[in-house]
Amino acid sequence: MNVKDYMEGVGQAARAASRETAKASTAAKDAALLAMAKAIRDSRDALLAANAADVAEAKANGLDAALLDRLTLTAKGIESMAQGLEQVAALPDPVGEITDLKRRPTGIQVGKMRVPLGVVGIIYEARPNVTADAAALCLKSGNAAILRGGKEAIRSNQAVAACVRTGLKTAGLPETAVQVVETTDRAAVGHLVAMPQYVDVIVPRGGKGLIERISKEARVPVIKHLDGNCHVYVDDAADPAMALKIIENAKTQRLGTCNTAESVVVARRVAAAQLPAIGKMLMTKGVEIRGCAETLALVPGAKAATEEDYYTEYLAAIISCKVVADVGEAIEHINKYSSGHTEAIVTENYTHAMRFLREVDSSSVMVNASTRFADGFEYGLGAEIGISTDKFHARGPVGLEGLTSQKWIVLGNGEVRG
Amino acid sequence: MNVKDYMEGVGQAARAASRETAKASTAAKDAALLAMAKAIRDSRDALLAANAADVAEAKANGLDAALLDRLTLTAKGIESMAQGLEQVAALPDPVGEITDLKRRPTGIQVGKMRVPLGVVGIIYEARPNVTADAAALCLKSGNAAILRGGKEAIRSNQAVAACVRTGLKTAGLPETAVQVVETTDRAAVGHLVAMPQYVDVIVPRGGKGLIERISKEARVPVIKHLDGNCHVYVDDAADPAMALKIIENAKTQRLGTCNTAESVVVARRVAAAQLPAIGKMLMTKGVEIRGCAETLALVPGAKAATEEDYYTEYLAAIISCKVVADVGEAIEHINKYSSGHTEAIVTENYTHAMRFLREVDSSSVMVNASTRFADGFEYGLGAEIGISTDKFHARGPVGLEGLTSQKWIVLGNGEVRG
Repeated sequence: MNVKDYMEGVGQAARAASRETAKASTAAKDAALLAMAKAIRDSRDALLAANAADVAEAKANGLDAALLDRLTLTAKGIESMAQGLEQVAALPDPVGEITDLKRRPTGIQVGKMRVPLGVVGIIYEARPNVTADAAALCLKSGNAAILRGGKEAIRSNQAVAACVRTGLKTAGLPETAVQVVETTDRAAVGHLVAMPQYVDVIVPRGGKGLIERISKEARVPVIKHLDGNCHVYVDDAADPAMALKIIENAKTQRLGTCNTAESVVVARRVAAAQLPAIGKMLMTKGVEIRGCAETLALVPGAKAATEEDYYTEYLAAIISCKVVADVGEAIEHINKYSSGHTEAIVTENYTHAMRFLREVDSSSVMVNASTRFADGFEYGLGAEIGISTDKFHARGPVGLEGLTSQKWIVLGNGEVRG
Repeated sequence: MNVKDYMEGVGQAARAASRETAKASTAAKDAALLAMAKAIRDSRDALLAANAADVAEAKANGLDAALLDRLTLTAKGIESMAQGLEQVAALPDPVGEITDLKRRPTGIQVGKMRVPLGVVGIIYEARPNVTADAAALCLKSGNAAILRGGKEAIRSNQAVAACVRTGLKTAGLPETAVQVVETTDRAAVGHLVAMPQYVDVIVPRGGKGLIERISKEARVPVIKHLDGNCHVYVDDAADPAMALKIIENAKTQRLGTCNTAESVVVARRVAAAQLPAIGKMLMTKGVEIRGCAETLALVPGAKAATEEDYYTEYLAAIISCKVVADVGEAIEHINKYSSGHTEAIVTENYTHAMRFLREVDSSSVMVNASTRFADGFEYGLGAEIGISTDKFHARGPVGLEGLTSQKWIVLGNGEVRG
């Protein structure tokens, strides 16, 4: 069978299964998730063997160390995959929730009901645990899922897929509710993102290159997360100790996450008083500072920033720095250079805080907190399928709710329109 | 200047203006809307003259009567345009609304703030009143707008645009917050829908051909409304008098609206008892019935329906009719043939009602009410920019809220992530 026909078949089966998952009871969905967790624990040896084969081939193909690390499954990783499934089972079911029911003057009651999106396509790279994780979130939110992992993890992903199918079967749900694409042909991705008749939304999880390619080719909506070029603005009314602590955490707690701060912006009135200490703290932690002329004058050892630096998500021990006139110029600077992920202000001034919250055009805007909090678990969503830097549909950390939509419901007593 | 450069300039100006409209106070936005209303009343003669020139040219070009009717502005139409602006001014401002603020175990408070989408592009056909209406909804929701009306209404639209600009200027808002495209070159539409750097969303208002073309070409999200192939299902537990009254209203109150019923589905157990009266009522009202074999046996004068009939939005005095086994088969039939706009069940059975509400995959699902209620004003939105048959972002009648997004806000006290 050619890859187009194969994907067409996968899409058709997913669409049919989505009618079942949409009306599945919470009990059935949770039973499936718990049975998947059990199957994963029971299949530990098979999972390790499949993964070892993937890792061996990847090594032979000269995959780099970081990718090998993400590809490798350990006994501990398998246990946390099972626990992740149990955690999703424990979350409240968003489907069917009725809100905002109001009686209208005509007598009808109008409200909204939360419903699944339908079929979710997930495209991801090395990590095999995404297979279990994404399957769980899609199923709990009442969607059918088509998962397309990287070719380097094909054996691991198929081994996880077998456990997922066991769980679905145990709970009496269609095994096609979660399908893991079996071909490693790259053309499968192109078909997956261009079947609006079968797929309602695509969630790419991976590097910027993957996401850009998919956004360009997709003929269905994409919940996408591009850069996290996050800023911390030290206002002229900032508590200096708090600013120092927040910048330290936002930049240095983990260098490679999307909510890591990549730029510090400082109000001119406090730059001389605070920037030297901030610079020293960062450099002591091994972070290179690339700053404007005023930064260079205040932070010995800082390098000159280019225009390009202010647009850059380093994901590394480098940070850009800019001195600005006031909160207005800070907002302007951030709205120009930011990728719209997460920005924080440090200030004791109420009006500055409110203005920053209102005017900064990013998916998360914070006052006196570390950008590192921008995360589905920290926000209390209980899960996260990704972080959206788009404004449409879902913005910021996306949990179960982001995989659903709302339809209108009308409860009448025979009313007609006059 | 070529049309591409012209649209690029319009886009740039809109993006810049959107920063101002996003932070504009409710008072300033409302003052602008009231000043627009005044300018429209003050410019009545100029508006009528501009419109008369459009109508004369349209007549000379042989435009059909329906289009001429939609193009023509009367003194009454001008007054209701002004009143429409005042009504939008009276609506609550959605921008800046903070909801769902919850304290997390870490100490931070996490919530959502409603924010404008940015720049909204509206593409519409003959009716010049859309210019004022769309301008009002975009401005009130904090967005900048680029309006592209039909070439047959260019003089009328530019005359309305002058009033809109007067209103913006009076309130101290940038006149570029609402721009009405001045060129009638069709290529302008192609550029408008393909400038993601300047335009955040497109709302096409017009016929199916226009919407399909735009959806295909757009490189930004489209809030689109395609067919309204709406169903009324008469359940085996329906109150016969209520069913008759709802079908009469849903089909015959107005034939040409998108929430008009285009198909009746009847449970077999009550078909013999109820379908003859339903058929008689419809035919007395001049509605042609196209039905399945069972319909033909019960309704003298009905014609045989083709498969295509069940997919058709007639917008005319024709209705399709299908006898089904039960509520399950009704849901299946509707989910197959419906365009996902609005469907209603008539029933006294609680379980059937709940199942219909839950399983019918349309933007509005009703129990014991006429499909004609699917409307932003009837739902209490206070306004309507369109009705979305998509599941993403906005679904069903779209008011001010559909022109906004929500960002996450975090209120901290110096918290960092552990």
